[in-house]
Amino acid sequence: MAEQGVTPRSEDDARWYNDVVLKADLADYAPVRGCMIIKPYGYELWEGIQAGLDRRFKATGHRNAYFPLLIPMSFIQKEKEHVEGFAPELAVVTHGGGKELEEPLVIRPTSETVIGHAFAEWIHSYNDLPLLLNQWANVVRWEMRPRLFLRTLEFLWQEGHTAHATAEEAQEETMRILDLYADFARNEAAIPVIPGRKSEKEKFAGAVASYTIEGMMGSKWALQCGTSHNLGQNFARVFDIKYLDRKNELQHCWTTSWGVSTRMVGAIIMAHGDDKGLRLPPRLAPIQAVLVPIFKTEAEKPALLEAIARLRDALAAAGIRVHADLREGLTPGFKFNDWEMRGVPVRIEVGPRDLAQGTVVCARRDLPGKDGKTTAAMTEIVPAVTRLLGEVQANLLRQAEAFRDANLHEAGSYGELAEIVKDGWGLLWHCGTAECEGRIQEETKASSRCFPLDLNPEWHPAGRTCAVCGKPAQGRAYFARAY
Amino acid sequence: MAEQGVTPRSEDDARWYNDVVLKADLADYAPVRGCMIIKPYGYELWEGIQAGLDRRFKATGHRNAYFPLLIPMSFIQKEKEHVEGFAPELAVVTHGGGKELEEPLVIRPTSETVIGHAFAEWIHSYNDLPLLLNQWANVVRWEMRPRLFLRTLEFLWQEGHTAHATAEEAQEETMRILDLYADFARNEAAIPVIPGRKSEKEKFAGAVASYTIEGMMGSKWALQCGTSHNLGQNFARVFDIKYLDRKNELQHCWTTSWGVSTRMVGAIIMAHGDDKGLRLPPRLAPIQAVLVPIFKTEAEKPALLEAIARLRDALAAAGIRVHADLREGLTPGFKFNDWEMRGVPVRIEVGPRDLAQGTVVCARRDLPGKDGKTTAAMTEIVPAVTRLLGEVQANLLRQAEAFRDANLHEAGSYGELAEIVKDGWGLLWHCGTAECEGRIQEETKASSRCFPLDLNPEWHPAGRTCAVCGKPAQGRAYFARAY
Repeated sequence: MAEQGVTPRSEDDARWYNDVVLKADLADYAPVRGCMIIKPYGYELWEGIQAGLDRRFKATGHRNAYFPLLIPMSFIQKEKEHVEGFAPELAVVTHGGGKELEEPLVIRPTSETVIGHAFAEWIHSYNDLPLLLNQWANVVRWEMRPRLFLRTLEFLWQEGHTAHATAEEAQEETMRILDLYADFARNEAAIPVIPGRKSEKEKFAGAVASYTIEGMMGSKWALQCGTSHNLGQNFARVFDIKYLDRKNELQHCWTTSWGVSTRMVGAIIMAHGDDKGLRLPPRLAPIQAVLVPIFKTEAEKPALLEAIARLRDALAAAGIRVHADLREGLTPGFKFNDWEMRGVPVRIEVGPRDLAQGTVVCARRDLPGKDGKTTAAMTEIVPAVTRLLGEVQANLLRQAEAFRDANLHEAGSYGELAEIVKDGWGLLWHCGTAECEGRIQEETKASSRCFPLDLNPEWHPAGRTCAVCGKPAQGRAYFARAY
Repeated sequence: MAEQGVTPRSEDDARWYNDVVLKADLADYAPVRGCMIIKPYGYELWEGIQAGLDRRFKATGHRNAYFPLLIPMSFIQKEKEHVEGFAPELAVVTHGGGKELEEPLVIRPTSETVIGHAFAEWIHSYNDLPLLLNQWANVVRWEMRPRLFLRTLEFLWQEGHTAHATAEEAQEETMRILDLYADFARNEAAIPVIPGRKSEKEKFAGAVASYTIEGMMGSKWALQCGTSHNLGQNFARVFDIKYLDRKNELQHCWTTSWGVSTRMVGAIIMAHGDDKGLRLPPRLAPIQAVLVPIFKTEAEKPALLEAIARLRDALAAAGIRVHADLREGLTPGFKFNDWEMRGVPVRIEVGPRDLAQGTVVCARRDLPGKDGKTTAAMTEIVPAVTRLLGEVQANLLRQAEAFRDANLHEAGSYGELAEIVKDGWGLLWHCGTAECEGRIQEETKASSRCFPLDLNPEWHPAGRTCAVCGKPAQGRAYFARAY
């Protein structure tokens, strides 16, 4: 039992993270360096993320499709910025079916090119627009500093790709998806992300403008949790995506792309986890409630197990994801710690005294010790657990929001920013150039996260100057250490 | 409108198939030869297949996980039969991140090796068994004769991988999954597959025994629709998958693997399609009912569209996948043909006379002309369509079953078999050797499909001899032309 538990987060955040991922059975290392195996508990978390996003995509008129893994090298090379951004990260297939290929193929690092090629064949007139597609797929980017869930050589994601008749519609779509992502992050993952626009330096290779949802992790570092790109006519021109408008004139389309990946699992771990391990938001938790029997003598066992089976069936029938921990040879205390480490939102303890009284003890993962314990009548188990799950979900969001707000600071000068980003996020008037951004990053290790979209009228850049170079400011940007 | 419609199936089955796939927007060719793009209508069919299988996997205790796309070349080479089977079909990554790799990586053609490696790390004692995993993934096999959905260089599938403590449990699992597949095919895809054991020649590279569900297509050719393999201890020995048994002795595990792929979409197309196009089983049809307005004057239109919106909302609220075809500038007749080609099970026609009477005309895709038409009160649309969908589902299965049974024949001699397989499946006493099987295939073009599991006592091989070589028979095997 010496091996139980994780390195406390307060001691070492990086070791805590790896401990949690491995010990909670979310993932494991794969034989190929930089790749990972997503284990069932981690994959179930991903399935919850998929369901929450997929429902939203379909409700906004998007349809799923599937495009090929292998892309001709020449496709990637067509868009100038795109190839510059992705060339260093490509995995290249040179042999197939026992022969050397005439043209090497790359494993998709993202699918704008191959989907652009298809769009050009499918789109003829304004009747074909908008075209709103999404795919759930794996992509490969050769990462030099891999980290489980956060940066892996292969990762799973969804990538949306849409084509529109006008610039306005493409921008509306870009923002619709950003809102959708922020809504998902907030209401399912309980992460109060900050939506904003990426700087020139940080935008997607080939985009006109990139938008992001930035999450503050428990370490106060930032994590980019999803991005939505307005590609303008860049890919439409290169791949010849054209349509006949209502005046019968040929126009280039306006396209967008957007994605959320298995990195979101990392976000959930780091936004909510504490010294003891995971704290999973009930909406996405693979196990929402765990039943643990407590007995001292074998004679107490049969009645207890029968009660637990009844409670489990009642909860499952109500659509609650419940698990009964009937493992032999482990103490209740060991099991409590184990499920705490795994972040299960509600633990239900059932002992002989409870049984005699027709009650159980429910313990919330988000409130330690006695504060999180309540007693519920067995006959009321479904409404009691349903209520607790709702409270845990709301409280995780509330805690994350309070934590975020306590660590967002306005920086009046570059000097102030340098102090702030040692332990928080700083909001600075910024010219938006790669030069100033690069200097800030080099000197403070903080990168530009986004120009937040929160439209505070006082934030209008008119008359404002960059805190670094003194030239006109483009707006206020958050700077922070980031994963 | 000259382009509407497909080559009649009765004229040319192969052209009909390609026409249907392309014109019904199920899929398209990709830029890389042998790859395909699955378009939304085809992908929604696959999502239905995924849901039907995934539900069954979870109900039988399997959990989803995800293993990496890239496998070290050395892994594939470990199991002798496995490498012989897959080496000619591998796609090889030689460069990553701008450098030549020290060891080439292969894109998974199947994942027994990389999962076997993980199982060896995860399994320690009998407490860890059985380990029942599944993954939804893409795989690549370098196909020389690609065909949309049936044989593509990349395809989507699920691959289950399990480890067990005993040979008996592994065999039980192999058969449990075969039953599950047959149940899915029959009750969701309306394909009355024949479950059976594969011959030595046709079994999976590395398996002890392979089982299959074989479907009879409308052309009377066979299609392997799914396979379940008992791998014995072959992979456990090579990858060192061991567990401590209850006597504290180290034992090799017994493993299985099993898969169903996007080929199932091809099976649905070919099992049910007719001269006019697709006929989709309602349980899997992306659109179960389509509403088509019929009007002659613009004045009739507003009331009609209002009625259609009401009907659509009522059907959607009842969980029926419904679509209202409100396209402008197309005649009702054109729309009827279009939705027939796309295989929508029920068409609902709404005209001014219907509106006045408060009724609609429902047309079943499976019964042509007047036989398939019924009138339903608008107020009764939900029960009426629900009933029709049930009838179409049952009738497609009944038709496929009658067709199958009419084309299964017992062959008393090799000469009889040669005649039978020109236009059906023949059941022949067979020694099971690759020699006899090869000879049959060369001379008749029919391959061994399976030794069916139907336990007719008269089929016991005792005292029976192979109809080709005269040596003792292993059993009765179906032979047929196959895709």
